[in-house]
Amino acid sequence: MSASVIRALFSVASRPEVVSLAGGMPFVQALPLDSVADTVHRLIRERGASALQYGSGQGDPQLREQILEVVRPVGISCHPDDIVVTCGSQMALDLVTKVFCDPGDVVLVEAPSYVGALGVFASYQCEVRHLAMDEAGLLPHALQGALDTLAAEGRRAKMLYTIPSFQNPSGVTQTPERRRELLQIAQAAGLLVLEDDPYGLLGFTGEPPTALRAQDAESVIYLGSFSKTIAAGLRVGWVIAPHGVRERLVLAAESAVLCPSNFTQLTVSEYLATQPWQEQIKAFVELYRERRDALIQALQATMPVGTSWTVPQGGFYSWVTLPDGLDATAMLPRAIAGRVAYVPGTGFFADGQGSQQLRLSYCYPEPDRITEGVRRLAGVVEEELALQATFGTSLPTDPGLPATAVPGPEIS
Amino acid sequence: MSASVIRALFSVASRPEVVSLAGGMPFVQALPLDSVADTVHRLIRERGASALQYGSGQGDPQLREQILEVVRPVGISCHPDDIVVTCGSQMALDLVTKVFCDPGDVVLVEAPSYVGALGVFASYQCEVRHLAMDEAGLLPHALQGALDTLAAEGRRAKMLYTIPSFQNPSGVTQTPERRRELLQIAQAAGLLVLEDDPYGLLGFTGEPPTALRAQDAESVIYLGSFSKTIAAGLRVGWVIAPHGVRERLVLAAESAVLCPSNFTQLTVSEYLATQPWQEQIKAFVELYRERRDALIQALQATMPVGTSWTVPQGGFYSWVTLPDGLDATAMLPRAIAGRVAYVPGTGFFADGQGSQQLRLSYCYPEPDRITEGVRRLAGVVEEELALQATFGTSLPTDPGLPATAVPGPEIS
Repeated sequence: MSASVIRALFSVASRPEVVSLAGGMPFVQALPLDSVADTVHRLIRERGASALQYGSGQGDPQLREQILEVVRPVGISCHPDDIVVTCGSQMALDLVTKVFCDPGDVVLVEAPSYVGALGVFASYQCEVRHLAMDEAGLLPHALQGALDTLAAEGRRAKMLYTIPSFQNPSGVTQTPERRRELLQIAQAAGLLVLEDDPYGLLGFTGEPPTALRAQDAESVIYLGSFSKTIAAGLRVGWVIAPHGVRERLVLAAESAVLCPSNFTQLTVSEYLATQPWQEQIKAFVELYRERRDALIQALQATMPVGTSWTVPQGGFYSWVTLPDGLDATAMLPRAIAGRVAYVPGTGFFADGQGSQQLRLSYCYPEPDRITEGVRRLAGVVEEELALQATFGTSLPTDPGLPATAVPGPEIS
Repeated sequence: MSASVIRALFSVASRPEVVSLAGGMPFVQALPLDSVADTVHRLIRERGASALQYGSGQGDPQLREQILEVVRPVGISCHPDDIVVTCGSQMALDLVTKVFCDPGDVVLVEAPSYVGALGVFASYQCEVRHLAMDEAGLLPHALQGALDTLAAEGRRAKMLYTIPSFQNPSGVTQTPERRRELLQIAQAAGLLVLEDDPYGLLGFTGEPPTALRAQDAESVIYLGSFSKTIAAGLRVGWVIAPHGVRERLVLAAESAVLCPSNFTQLTVSEYLATQPWQEQIKAFVELYRERRDALIQALQATMPVGTSWTVPQGGFYSWVTLPDGLDATAMLPRAIAGRVAYVPGTGFFADGQGSQQLRLSYCYPEPDRITEGVRRLAGVVEEELALQATFGTSLPTDPGLPATAVPGPEIS
């Protein structure tokens, strides 16, 4: 169901007349394509026999060494043996769930949470429980409350899945204090934490947020990805896990795909070794910040009163709450007719919440397209409000984020 | 466990003083690496924005069109929509099993069968039952017998997993008549057939064997791969499935990896579009035939009486039965000390059979290395026989293939 939504969106997003604020596609056109082409050309000529051959199920040893440099900015130090390379971090999500979860197991997630993770948890028949967030991220009392409720039921949560930095879809980032509180609760409860961090290096201000994994190597399994910092089409991600878990993940990975592609892994490795990848990430960040600014300015300038949104400090997404009585899923066909696309909020919940909300992605369209897309969206919302004023509405309103979770429309 | 064996073998195979007849690595060095490098260089310069981006969960539409040409020689005609591209056909195996099998479900497989498939079936807690083969492939009466036994138990088999052409590990190919008989039995029983065909285009004589899928588009799910015809390091395989199954496979694939790598898919697509890929497959076939000949000649020339082996008409493997009383697993450390490696037969069974047997791969080493490797192996077997003559043996002998399944050592 959620996967069907993704597919429908891919199809919509490909029509040139539609401004898609739906998909989370990185703007890979900003890469120096000539340099990447030269990098791969050299790789195949010089190391083709390795790049085109089967490799290790755990991933290329040199790439795992290089990943140590990539995770250093988020405060993680580990050993290359702790790393398992996967076909994008989606595969890591799938493997961790396969290894840990049996049908009926409870997984705690943010409200809202990443649609691809919800799909994995559903495919393993997990019971997903959403935890409220505010502008500082997942609420500690929501986590503690869920654990207490489960204990009262004689049950335990199998794990907490969280995206602490520039969350998908909310755009919210956990503060350092919040991270400490959440880790303390998890540690006291013996709760496994699955930390998904694809956007950690894409912050617009200051240093990258320190990962949960940097503070706890035992309770936290960390998922990283090159999809947003190099290129999504390579499908190279990784998981950092404690020793015993890592062994099981490697076995599960071998069963699932034998080994990740040496061709894509060595392409990443050669790129990291020969290209100014940190500078390229800075260029991506500048580009995404400019687009975030365009989005927020357009929302401020055009959206009807009663609409609110988060102001992300990094990553790809803003989370919009529509005026009371509007339904983002019901509105979507009219939005597409109005030549703008978004992802309705319900896709980010396992329990039907989110009808009044939607996700806007600013990562892919050029700033003037973003401005135009938001202008169109504002027009669609105005029309919905006019319809509502004329005919009334019986749609239930059930905002996923509490009112306090939606910062005022400001740029910072 | 089986995955650990694979890993240990990878590690052994990498030591240069050891002749590895263990791993099934294609000889990718035979590719025109300069042309492949130019192909990828052009791809990134001209279509980098697509190649480096997320793609469709079902796989690139143009590549799926091109796969129609690749499966035509094995007699398959289908629609591009019937194809799902996967990260190697191992992933297709995993997805099909995930979609169809619940814990305890029975999967029928050949005796012996592909170790990576047995690993997948074990990971989904399937019950594997092995079916006897002879020199013409899986025995129809073995299939019918297994179905009857299950019916008597009030159970059903979930599917039959078979590698009809140049089987891994036995090297045996089902005759056309055998294929018809097996399909009739499967159709009468309403049995799903999972046909794994990575070697179908690598036959040494005549036309490629006609796939089971060519004769039955409803009961048969077909797995194909570019790992042996282009390059294993790309991890591009595919599954051809009936409509309803295909829909479920796409959803499962999206949950598992979001989408296969556009970079590797478009590399394959560009290679197929611009390079003489059929001529390259002919070159691979010549190379592998020469190595098969070297293997069989060396076996004939050096192996002690009482040893027998299959003579493959394509693919990568010969299946060797040791003289009575010898145990291939127990012998392996002494073989490695003697600087030759193979895969013990027990890895290809889920039920402990195969101790007297082993798999030899001739795909990767140069012919003179194969000759030397077999000479070393013959010496190790001679020593085992001498030990046995001196001290006797209490090892059980339990050949996986019946005596009739092992053709005399001849080259054809």
